[in-house]
Amino acid sequence: MLERIRIVLVGTSHPGNIGGTARAMHNMGLSDLALVAPRCEPISAETVSRASGADTLVHQARSVESLEDAVGDCTLVVGASARSRTLPWPMLTPRQLGARLPDELADTDSRIALVFGREDSGLTNAEMQRCHAHVHIPTNPDFSSLNLAAAVQVVTYECRLAWLEGAGDAEAPATEPLASHQELEHYFEHLERTLVEIGFHDPAMPRQLMARLRRYTFKARPERLELNILRGILTATQRQVAAAQAEPDAAPDSRHHGPRADT
Amino acid sequence: MLERIRIVLVGTSHPGNIGGTARAMHNMGLSDLALVAPRCEPISAETVSRASGADTLVHQARSVESLEDAVGDCTLVVGASARSRTLPWPMLTPRQLGARLPDELADTDSRIALVFGREDSGLTNAEMQRCHAHVHIPTNPDFSSLNLAAAVQVVTYECRLAWLEGAGDAEAPATEPLASHQELEHYFEHLERTLVEIGFHDPAMPRQLMARLRRYTFKARPERLELNILRGILTATQRQVAAAQAEPDAAPDSRHHGPRADT
Repeated sequence: MLERIRIVLVGTSHPGNIGGTARAMHNMGLSDLALVAPRCEPISAETVSRASGADTLVHQARSVESLEDAVGDCTLVVGASARSRTLPWPMLTPRQLGARLPDELADTDSRIALVFGREDSGLTNAEMQRCHAHVHIPTNPDFSSLNLAAAVQVVTYECRLAWLEGAGDAEAPATEPLASHQELEHYFEHLERTLVEIGFHDPAMPRQLMARLRRYTFKARPERLELNILRGILTATQRQVAAAQAEPDAAPDSRHHGPRADT
Repeated sequence: MLERIRIVLVGTSHPGNIGGTARAMHNMGLSDLALVAPRCEPISAETVSRASGADTLVHQARSVESLEDAVGDCTLVVGASARSRTLPWPMLTPRQLGARLPDELADTDSRIALVFGREDSGLTNAEMQRCHAHVHIPTNPDFSSLNLAAAVQVVTYECRLAWLEGAGDAEAPATEPLASHQELEHYFEHLERTLVEIGFHDPAMPRQLMARLRRYTFKARPERLELNILRGILTATQRQVAAAQAEPDAAPDSRHHGPRADT
């Protein structure tokens, strides 16, 4: 899907922005770049520096004279708009644009162009009206003009998210098995016993202590391994209590014989 | 809400990225910038050029020596992570982070730090483990490293969207004040000291124990009161250790004189 989304830069002045755009595109898995009448040499030291390894996209970019030449084969052309226009146009947020992509690109012949204007003046009204829809990135009204590559970054990020969602979102992290209810209850018994032994808890005057510790533990959703560590700590604590109540020469050498959880 | 989100740049090398970050922040309505041990002169011609009018944020930025100094007062510290770590940490997408913001910032004393690492090497493992959660921007696995300012742009864009959405409904649940980063770090120090004393932990053979306990604690998002209880338990435990190592008649009567948290 992403390979059928083209980024079109119109009248770009700064080669650094072309490099930054290439990097943003490549980061998000896009590769089709078109440059319409750039007002600078597209490939310069600054391009390469800002592209940071993605300058192949600039080398492969088609360079054309008019917007028309860049988007002729596209089934949807969306222009980035910083300003509200006198004539309201179908207006999308980047997120709404993303939400439309799967349908828009369902047909394998379909192709989308996302068009970004000049650093200083954006797209002309004539260019905006060639676009089927406009996309506007919500910005601080007091400081609304995004850097060109930053705008491309935001819009292509939404494209990638839409694509990942459509792909069934394979980015779920592997998780450790959680402790079972029963294991948690055994832990709470062990905890309460230990707190009594160290003199921190008096079941005759509970003052919500165990309720608070339960709630705290539930918030953490302990994994089985984590619970084993916590129980190991309780056991080591109980050993100290036993030593404190025994003869001094029975005190355990805590450094070398203390229990250790297998972490 | 946005004014209580701090962007923290750690060890930045390129002034242009500091300028680009300031512009991205200002575009999205954020203003609180902190620079941790920058590896360049933060304010240069390139900063001003890339900031494009937002360089006041750099002038107002606090410059500090350590991550700790930059995030001590924050109730949630989220580190940007490009890599999957050996020890999985609570991991958010930028969108999930945005969804959490209204609740996280409901208490007007709460404050969030979003931490971004070095251009070449990101955050160290130690720095990552000081973060309560990690945020990962989904990128092309073949070209995953975003420009620093571009990463800030994406994450702050999600912050702004969340703020715009939340601006509709001002219903926030009443919450207890959360422990600050600094309070959590003091707890971890106390915990580690106690684990050494009871013979459960050997700093010379750490085996990820403290990292696991940090992660567990961050999952639970301790309230200040909960942290006070946990520290009370540690103090009571240490008293047992002291007694175990002392003369038997010096052992405390755990039942009646043990410390108690005010629950």
